[in-house]
Amino acid sequence: MAARLVANRYGKQTVRLVTVDRGADRHELKDLTVDVAFSGDYESAHREGDNRRVYPTDSMKNSVYALARRQGVGEIEELALTLARHFVACEGAPDSVEVRIAERRWSRIEAGGRAHPHAFVAGGAERRTVRVEAGAGGAAERVESGIEDLLVLKTTGSAFAGFPRDAFTTLAETDDRILATSIEASWTYGGAASWGACWARARDLLLESFAEHESRSVQHTLYAMGERLLAELPEIEEIRLRLPNRHHLRVDLAPLGLDNPDRIFVATDEPYGLIEGTLRRG
Amino acid sequence: MAARLVANRYGKQTVRLVTVDRGADRHELKDLTVDVAFSGDYESAHREGDNRRVYPTDSMKNSVYALARRQGVGEIEELALTLARHFVACEGAPDSVEVRIAERRWSRIEAGGRAHPHAFVAGGAERRTVRVEAGAGGAAERVESGIEDLLVLKTTGSAFAGFPRDAFTTLAETDDRILATSIEASWTYGGAASWGACWARARDLLLESFAEHESRSVQHTLYAMGERLLAELPEIEEIRLRLPNRHHLRVDLAPLGLDNPDRIFVATDEPYGLIEGTLRRG
Amino acid sequence: MAARLVANRYGKQTVRLVTVDRGADRHELKDLTVDVAFSGDYESAHREGDNRRVYPTDSMKNSVYALARRQGVGEIEELALTLARHFVACEGAPDSVEVRIAERRWSRIEAGGRAHPHAFVAGGAERRTVRVEAGAGGAAERVESGIEDLLVLKTTGSAFAGFPRDAFTTLAETDDRILATSIEASWTYGGAASWGACWARARDLLLESFAEHESRSVQHTLYAMGERLLAELPEIEEIRLRLPNRHHLRVDLAPLGLDNPDRIFVATDEPYGLIEGTLRRG
Amino acid sequence: MAARLVANRYGKQTVRLVTVDRGADRHELKDLTVDVAFSGDYESAHREGDNRRVYPTDSMKNSVYALARRQGVGEIEELALTLARHFVACEGAPDSVEVRIAERRWSRIEAGGRAHPHAFVAGGAERRTVRVEAGAGGAAERVESGIEDLLVLKTTGSAFAGFPRDAFTTLAETDDRILATSIEASWTYGGAASWGACWARARDLLLESFAEHESRSVQHTLYAMGERLLAELPEIEEIRLRLPNRHHLRVDLAPLGLDNPDRIFVATDEPYGLIEGTLRRG
Repeated sequence: MAARLVANRYGKQTVRLVTVDRGADRHELKDLTVDVAFSGDYESAHREGDNRRVYPTDSMKNSVYALARRQGVGEIEELALTLARHFVACEGAPDSVEVRIAERRWSRIEAGGRAHPHAFVAGGAERRTVRVEAGAGGAAERVESGIEDLLVLKTTGSAFAGFPRDAFTTLAETDDRILATSIEASWTYGGAASWGACWARARDLLLESFAEHESRSVQHTLYAMGERLLAELPEIEEIRLRLPNRHHLRVDLAPLGLDNPDRIFVATDEPYGLIEGTLRRG
Repeated sequence: MAARLVANRYGKQTVRLVTVDRGADRHELKDLTVDVAFSGDYESAHREGDNRRVYPTDSMKNSVYALARRQGVGEIEELALTLARHFVACEGAPDSVEVRIAERRWSRIEAGGRAHPHAFVAGGAERRTVRVEAGAGGAAERVESGIEDLLVLKTTGSAFAGFPRDAFTTLAETDDRILATSIEASWTYGGAASWGACWARARDLLLESFAEHESRSVQHTLYAMGERLLAELPEIEEIRLRLPNRHHLRVDLAPLGLDNPDRIFVATDEPYGLIEGTLRRG
Repeated sequence: MAARLVANRYGKQTVRLVTVDRGADRHELKDLTVDVAFSGDYESAHREGDNRRVYPTDSMKNSVYALARRQGVGEIEELALTLARHFVACEGAPDSVEVRIAERRWSRIEAGGRAHPHAFVAGGAERRTVRVEAGAGGAAERVESGIEDLLVLKTTGSAFAGFPRDAFTTLAETDDRILATSIEASWTYGGAASWGACWARARDLLLESFAEHESRSVQHTLYAMGERLLAELPEIEEIRLRLPNRHHLRVDLAPLGLDNPDRIFVATDEPYGLIEGTLRRG
Repeated sequence: MAARLVANRYGKQTVRLVTVDRGADRHELKDLTVDVAFSGDYESAHREGDNRRVYPTDSMKNSVYALARRQGVGEIEELALTLARHFVACEGAPDSVEVRIAERRWSRIEAGGRAHPHAFVAGGAERRTVRVEAGAGGAAERVESGIEDLLVLKTTGSAFAGFPRDAFTTLAETDDRILATSIEASWTYGGAASWGACWARARDLLLESFAEHESRSVQHTLYAMGERLLAELPEIEEIRLRLPNRHHLRVDLAPLGLDNPDRIFVATDEPYGLIEGTLRRG
């Protein structure tokens, strides 16, 4: 036989889900996007088109809606665990499942001097995220919480110097530049944690450590951010960070007869640096 | 000759500009995107390739940087006016010029119990905007301020009923639905105004009136929002609103054996309704 | 009363429609996105929330599907006219309606030495477009056909020199540069035309004239393209062109010890020039 | 010490590169986007901000331009290998490097009955891709060629039935549906290959096998596509396929008084199925 199936995975992506908890006094809103992926022995499905174990991705979508209704959402870690545990036990159950949820955050509109009970304005681009992996029979559960698209910028306190040079190096050393990035961070826990409180504290620490660090490079800042989270959040075992370097270039105004002592910059989208690192406790 | 040039316009789009005002105690940050368009008699440029009056779009870009440096940015209305007045007097001056600026907003990071002096986190998707039109010799100046991508959602207080029905109507009447939109608003002034304060107040009023209105349709809410701004901001002459109706559909869970008393919705991107209207004082 | 409604418009955007004409031998495929907008006297809807004339945007969507089924699609100009004429006569009929359709093009997959009867591969990013405006009682019908996102690039035959200079001009004159743009063109007809053949010929002429023109500026090329269409397509009355100048910058390799006689360029997305013009016959 | 750095990687993303080979008779055009990533022992850079081994990402970008000029581009596999071999030997050389290149394809414009020597029109959304990994000293070189965003659709010859059902299953079985996907495929070679010819043949085979297969599921088609490539291209060792299921839903026109025997469909973007699989020879 010429071909072997050595890996496979399938599921449903971007199931959009908005839930309203309609309390007497005020409504609570959740705005979620859910991805589900099954892995397992789907050899005969691939080879022969035998669908007897191929649980439809449409049913995955329905399951998201049904379980969100039946159990409620709670923290996204809770919904992801509920879904993962449900799927590893469903018809044509996979060997393992991955559930991802991204939450967009909304704030209450301030109106008439108070937070409105049922009207909301979207928060920033950032999203709270979770990824849960689970195996059949409850094996190998893993929760990875995180944040994406948290845009930050500092106008000083960032340097880049002392790097190696060769014939293709034209970059000048600098002891003061703009540092801007879109933080993507995710972390795993030693066990169950107070999901919401832990996430909020992690977000604060990411922002604080970014702001306060005297940066010699993006790598240097990445490490400081990760170290700070591990130091202050004992629930966290490991943290992964991904920091694009969104270059802000000082505009050379000399040809226009003007100086530019770090006042006018052009923000660029491409190319961009990309710095990734993972830190583990211990 | 077979062809006449009956309209023309040219310019530079998406000039990205980040400025830092480096005070002793703290830095101020502006994050702008500028568009410039010239209109005028460019007949010979089109017909014969005579570029003697075609001021380069590259010079438009340089002018944005140079004038931001020389005059400072201030409120975006001020920068747009400075640019427009400069361009109508430049080499190969156009008959009229349009300058658009969109400002992305950043907040200071909270660190150690205080607002950080030089580290920032991006605000929401919303952008503050301005469009200035100006003619040669200072003629016909027009300032239109606005806001874009201000996402709002209310979980109740919105109905849609009493509409006409025909053979192609399947929509059910509803006295309670989610209303979600991405507000785009722009307004013109009777004269010079306190740009920043006026914009902040307009934003608050848009949010408040969206939150508090008992909506019978998006049109109904659009009118209430516009009327409120005209009533409370005497500086404003006319307001234009553009409200996409971002449909949130109640998921029918009955086939899954569950009820859904307005708890679980699916957010959809397309198709979407689009409601536009302009209100004028008097 | 403080506020007057001076303009208004509403409708449905991005109705996605794929139709299959299932012939015995082979299938025909159309892939369309439809926008509908109504204008008229909707004063009481805005002021009082009186929806008696507000034909639902959901019914607009249904009408697109129903009429595509009942009448067939044909050329997109035909479907747009069918829809526009239907809407100006519907319940709560507007004073005028605008229907836009964008068609994505698919080609048959070549398999086994022949064009496959029912399998397709997407064409380029370009879309064929139409915009129809119609008034009540068949008044003021206007058909504007066009093309969008037709990306073209020429590696020589383009110059830009002889332009005015001032203190903010740093651009060098060039007699040979890359010219790249994403053509957006639309044209109106003197009367009914052979829509499909006319569109195909217009596309060919846009490409040919772009390729063959000795360009002194984007404006110069824009005019040549428009003039060519008016000269060779007598059905066309007026043509509007919108040509972003997608700058390709020669990379300065001298600091790296290499020459670069127009071999290596960096493609940039922003900022970009934007050149617009309209030509009319006669 | 609380934190260990357990993984890290950094580099430059989206270096845009357009090259022109200026032959006497005609020009050849390449349009590439290059990503570079270094991995290695950058512990002291992270911990202490010691940049002595941190080769700047700006120099990576310069290296792309310089080597494209010095060596020429050739097939993208060749450029990626040149770059990877250069980087593992550069200052502060990493333990391993990954180079990715995506090529956008352009066709010559047909003008005056011939292919134009220096004017081009963009091909479809599809991109030709390559990923090269290389270790220090020439170790562990790996070439993975591929294609992305190849959009295909078949109007018949696709079924989905016989799948497991549970309380959350509402999907109807079907023996005839639209199947649409955006093919992402990548494959590794047993050794050096005729890169360009092999890629073109792989593309043809992907299209043909998609078109001709009697599909019982996306998995079934994925396997048929992979098996076909392994059978007909002996150079290929392993192939990875990623097939989003872009659902086209038959519109229910019964409430509008019309039948719909698979004529009118709505194309949806989300949610979507996602099917991934890897096949290996032997």
